[in-house]
Amino acid sequence: MTGLTYRATGVDPTRAEMSLARVRERIARTRRPEVIGDIGAFGGLFASPGADRVLVATTDGVGTKLEIARLLDRHEVVGTDLVHHCVNDAMAMGAEPLFFLDYFSTSRIDPEVFARVVGAMADACAAHGCALLGGETAEMPGLYGPGVYDLAGFLVGAAARDAILRPDSVREGDACIGLPSSGLHTNGYTLARGIAAKAAAAQGRDVSDALAAPHPGLDGRSLGDALLAPHTSYLAQFRALRASVRVRSIAHLTGGGWEGNLPRALPAGLGAVIDRGAWEVPAIFRVLAELGSVPEVDQWDTWNMGIGLVLIVPAADVAAALHAVPGAVAIGSVETASGTRRVRWASA
Amino acid sequence: MTGLTYRATGVDPTRAEMSLARVRERIARTRRPEVIGDIGAFGGLFASPGADRVLVATTDGVGTKLEIARLLDRHEVVGTDLVHHCVNDAMAMGAEPLFFLDYFSTSRIDPEVFARVVGAMADACAAHGCALLGGETAEMPGLYGPGVYDLAGFLVGAAARDAILRPDSVREGDACIGLPSSGLHTNGYTLARGIAAKAAAAQGRDVSDALAAPHPGLDGRSLGDALLAPHTSYLAQFRALRASVRVRSIAHLTGGGWEGNLPRALPAGLGAVIDRGAWEVPAIFRVLAELGSVPEVDQWDTWNMGIGLVLIVPAADVAAALHAVPGAVAIGSVETASGTRRVRWASA
Repeated sequence: MTGLTYRATGVDPTRAEMSLARVRERIARTRRPEVIGDIGAFGGLFASPGADRVLVATTDGVGTKLEIARLLDRHEVVGTDLVHHCVNDAMAMGAEPLFFLDYFSTSRIDPEVFARVVGAMADACAAHGCALLGGETAEMPGLYGPGVYDLAGFLVGAAARDAILRPDSVREGDACIGLPSSGLHTNGYTLARGIAAKAAAAQGRDVSDALAAPHPGLDGRSLGDALLAPHTSYLAQFRALRASVRVRSIAHLTGGGWEGNLPRALPAGLGAVIDRGAWEVPAIFRVLAELGSVPEVDQWDTWNMGIGLVLIVPAADVAAALHAVPGAVAIGSVETASGTRRVRWASA
Repeated sequence: MTGLTYRATGVDPTRAEMSLARVRERIARTRRPEVIGDIGAFGGLFASPGADRVLVATTDGVGTKLEIARLLDRHEVVGTDLVHHCVNDAMAMGAEPLFFLDYFSTSRIDPEVFARVVGAMADACAAHGCALLGGETAEMPGLYGPGVYDLAGFLVGAAARDAILRPDSVREGDACIGLPSSGLHTNGYTLARGIAAKAAAAQGRDVSDALAAPHPGLDGRSLGDALLAPHTSYLAQFRALRASVRVRSIAHLTGGGWEGNLPRALPAGLGAVIDRGAWEVPAIFRVLAELGSVPEVDQWDTWNMGIGLVLIVPAADVAAALHAVPGAVAIGSVETASGTRRVRWASA
């Protein structure tokens, strides 16, 4: 009788090694002077910053944007997204990125897909001066459907102790500066996919076709293209802003949209009044809302609606902020909060 | 017409919040003096150790042990496993744990299961003096089957620069000290599941029943019980050893078994000769090997076979090492490597 082996049950450890070999050079380019030794050890080594610094650690996934990337064979974007999402989250506490690790999990590793995803992660790390210090590649037969994979990213950054952003430094009357998003970034994709599925069904086509077809409301771009715009990294703008104005705190508008994130940058008792006429909501949000007849409150509680990052600055610094970062918009101000919802829309 | 909402498409952000609320107190007990602020911010804050230290970062999953835990409704163990696996990996570089973050991903959060998994993680962190600094809970309808979830853990530890373990400090003639494992730990479960499925089919029962039935080869314990023994944490033994002997390097025997891990603790050109008669292979491995007719080389290339950690120490320190840690076994020594395989079995 033939015996069972690891390979016979679906796991081939050489597949992970071969896949990693394809991106080893791109990973090597993320090396920083603090990195000690090579990947392959049981843990990545990184010389600690000094005791006057604060480490900022964050973990994120990219949600079901994964499914759209898979349907349209556009795997690079989710690798980029994962790094950008983590960079923004650490930055929202005032930190610069130091190093990143990833978790890639699937039923059977496809070396080409793996290399496209992790290669894009490595390139995004290199672009941010962030070391890709390690990762785990898990092959788990039966846990995922064919071709399906999940990703998690983990980033550690650092800031000087007095450069950590603190919501409790925010005062009534401070200003809210918005930076434009490229689209949904990595949040609200299950709702977007539900809408795409509904639209596809109404048209009698399958979802991939509906996603790939040019859409008149998107200037002829397809819904898929608009949904696969990469999550914007705000690190360069943040550096420019911090160099010229006092940034008090930051909200990264991710899962939970406006109400789910803006209050996280404010102390208890304060809220924000936002003028939604201050910027134009991008077409992708209007198209999705219309196709899905999504109630307005659900749109704003799920998606960023065109603003991916909100910075709180003293009112006196608004002009300097707008000057420092092209595209930045003054969108509102901090006020005493009343009621359970702390984001109030300015009446037109 | 009723519009689509995030909830209607299967994502309810309040489910993650409610689930987290159940374990908030247990997470709070993992707090260390270096932790700044509360969870809920965009990133966790941790005062940096000094510049004389090296940070050690590692990421792990628990593989398809997840499936056995789910089948037998024993979710706590995989939370514990995840922390112990990461603690051991950082320790294998010489580091003590500082903080941990987790990623929990599923199609629909079950608050009870979430609380059992993450609560066990928090308890394991507290037991190791490691802060549970943050986490991400992802609800991704359609990505996972009903009740299925995936986990990833990220741990950062630190060591004094001269306490980092370096394979290149190992010399020919050094000794290998083995520490016993509790079972498969978190590796080789796909093979174990394949064997259980085959045995169940031969008995005409379903896998859950076959896993839950007492097994004569396991002293009446069930296969499921044996497979769900928690991944051993070796931190206490490592501390005791380091206090009394010179530990040169460490191999954590995880994915890839002996050949996949022991050479990672050795410099190029060196291998190890191991006396497999020095310890008794635990019953679970013998039962699995027999049920699955698993070739011997596959057993040792997949599972730890009863030794979860191998420490390399100078030959002169063996007696002190065995004295310092009850249960430790002298299992072999370092020799010049010949051939592509670097672990050689001593002839009986």
